[in-house]
Amino acid sequence: MSEEASVVIRPIQETDKDDWLLLWKQYQKCYNRTMKEDIPLLTFERFLDPEVKMWAAFAINTTTNKPIGMVTYLHHFTTWNLDGKIFLHDLFVQEDQRVKGVGRKLMEFVYDASDRMDVPFVYWTTDDFNHRAQLLYTKVGKKTSKVLYERGGYGIFS
Amino acid sequence: MSEEASVVIRPIQETDKDDWLLLWKQYQKCYNRTMKEDIPLLTFERFLDPEVKMWAAFAINTTTNKPIGMVTYLHHFTTWNLDGKIFLHDLFVQEDQRVKGVGRKLMEFVYDASDRMDVPFVYWTTDDFNHRAQLLYTKVGKKTSKVLYERGGYGIFS
Amino acid sequence: MSEEASVVIRPIQETDKDDWLLLWKQYQKCYNRTMKEDIPLLTFERFLDPEVKMWAAFAINTTTNKPIGMVTYLHHFTTWNLDGKIFLHDLFVQEDQRVKGVGRKLMEFVYDASDRMDVPFVYWTTDDFNHRAQLLYTKVGKKTSKVLYERGGYGIFS
Amino acid sequence: MSEEASVVIRPIQETDKDDWLLLWKQYQKCYNRTMKEDIPLLTFERFLDPEVKMWAAFAINTTTNKPIGMVTYLHHFTTWNLDGKIFLHDLFVQEDQRVKGVGRKLMEFVYDASDRMDVPFVYWTTDDFNHRAQLLYTKVGKKTSKVLYERGGYGIFS
Repeated sequence: MSEEASVVIRPIQETDKDDWLLLWKQYQKCYNRTMKEDIPLLTFERFLDPEVKMWAAFAINTTTNKPIGMVTYLHHFTTWNLDGKIFLHDLFVQEDQRVKGVGRKLMEFVYDASDRMDVPFVYWTTDDFNHRAQLLYTKVGKKTSKVLYERGGYGIFS
Repeated sequence: MSEEASVVIRPIQETDKDDWLLLWKQYQKCYNRTMKEDIPLLTFERFLDPEVKMWAAFAINTTTNKPIGMVTYLHHFTTWNLDGKIFLHDLFVQEDQRVKGVGRKLMEFVYDASDRMDVPFVYWTTDDFNHRAQLLYTKVGKKTSKVLYERGGYGIFS
Repeated sequence: MSEEASVVIRPIQETDKDDWLLLWKQYQKCYNRTMKEDIPLLTFERFLDPEVKMWAAFAINTTTNKPIGMVTYLHHFTTWNLDGKIFLHDLFVQEDQRVKGVGRKLMEFVYDASDRMDVPFVYWTTDDFNHRAQLLYTKVGKKTSKVLYERGGYGIFS
Repeated sequence: MSEEASVVIRPIQETDKDDWLLLWKQYQKCYNRTMKEDIPLLTFERFLDPEVKMWAAFAINTTTNKPIGMVTYLHHFTTWNLDGKIFLHDLFVQEDQRVKGVGRKLMEFVYDASDRMDVPFVYWTTDDFNHRAQLLYTKVGKKTSKVLYERGGYGIFS
């Protein structure tokens, strides 16, 4: 409980660039992927760009004042309602900081942000074999009956 | 073969409003849903709005000159690449016009449009129990290992 | 309709050995597998052995008097009821004989046999990507929420 | 480690009847089901009946000498090989005894028994939403691409 109390979620800000890159590299490892640094750096700039409806937040350990997790999300329109919806894109908590409620706090931060934008539809995906993530998702969300297809020959879905 | 030849895919245009509404109503029936007319009408306007990266196309029977199917798609950014990707949102072919390659033509129209935009990543979803659709999708795309979750209490995914 | 009327389902019998082997070889092709002939031949003997609760039936084209499909099924106990249940193991219809209701007739034959044995629980599996089969299964059965695991290193599930 | 060392797996025996019933009742609660006592009792007799190829084992806490988990398994023939295979039917560990390797030990007991019978094919199912179980299963087994159907109208799959 005291551990949960020591984590706070806040939006990414200008001075977070190096911490962002560090966390993103750890995140890529979970997917056994690497990308050139320019992608996470330009993505970082988009989070701060008021013209782009894409955002990120850090989970900060208030004792060390260091980020131990992150979440990203974006808005896009749909044809079925006028407000569009929020796609919760990435969720990451450092391995040794898990099972303490940090992931849930990051998701709830997105829920709150969505409510404030009056776009309360939030959705996300995960690999069907990622059971650890789904132990959380069954508590805060609802699995749909949807399967996801992608155009072949253009790399895996991301 | 001659039947396939008699179908052409073209972007939605200003004068299609009534046909659009008609087709959209038939489409909603597949999902046992109804929405007020203002949503498909405002969605229709977004397709034509150069500021909104959301588009639609009709499959036209060249004999009757009537639309017998439609597709919608939109662009959104991602955090994993800089170009973003295309979400193929809706695909519909009138019941008595199926199994003639119309659905495939509509998808290929989106692939071509994506290529022209230099955003060749295209993805879409369907219900896991929609086996008729998936007979097509396994031919033109690749099923991913992703499962899709949504925030509970805000209606079904759409 | 007249086509459906020309098919009859009947249990495998002693004189069917060669026809059985022929159909089984066609069936294996669907799974890109080959086995030595002794397995289908000994399996055939089990269908006729009153000591073994494993059975098979042919779909016979009454015009040509030739088998065009087959089904196999077996009984095993369970810990959740005393009667056990029926596993519908194999279902096969020759490629050019499909979409005529033969598969459904074969399944209904198993249902009837199960009822006569007072073991009306029937279940079966298929590959999640076999959408053609599932178009039938959603009509005659119910998809469960179960996933199937097997011990690794002993070949694929069969 | 010392905790793991204090658990031993052994076959069910004649004197286990009361303990069996107790554990089975706890197990049923996981599925929100109840059955009359005669089913688990007659099932228990089948485990000990040399004529029935159905077995069970207890996980015994060697400190308290009490069962804290159980596994059941049975043999049935298949049409694809001559030896048949082993269906691992039930797996249960008391809630407060989990995450200590007891489930894994129970599964390995079945693997060993299967090897001794020269029937090393072992398979089992679980609900696709049972992520806690699947965290174990991905370590000791392999998820297949199979979906499971059952005849409608005869109760849920069990």
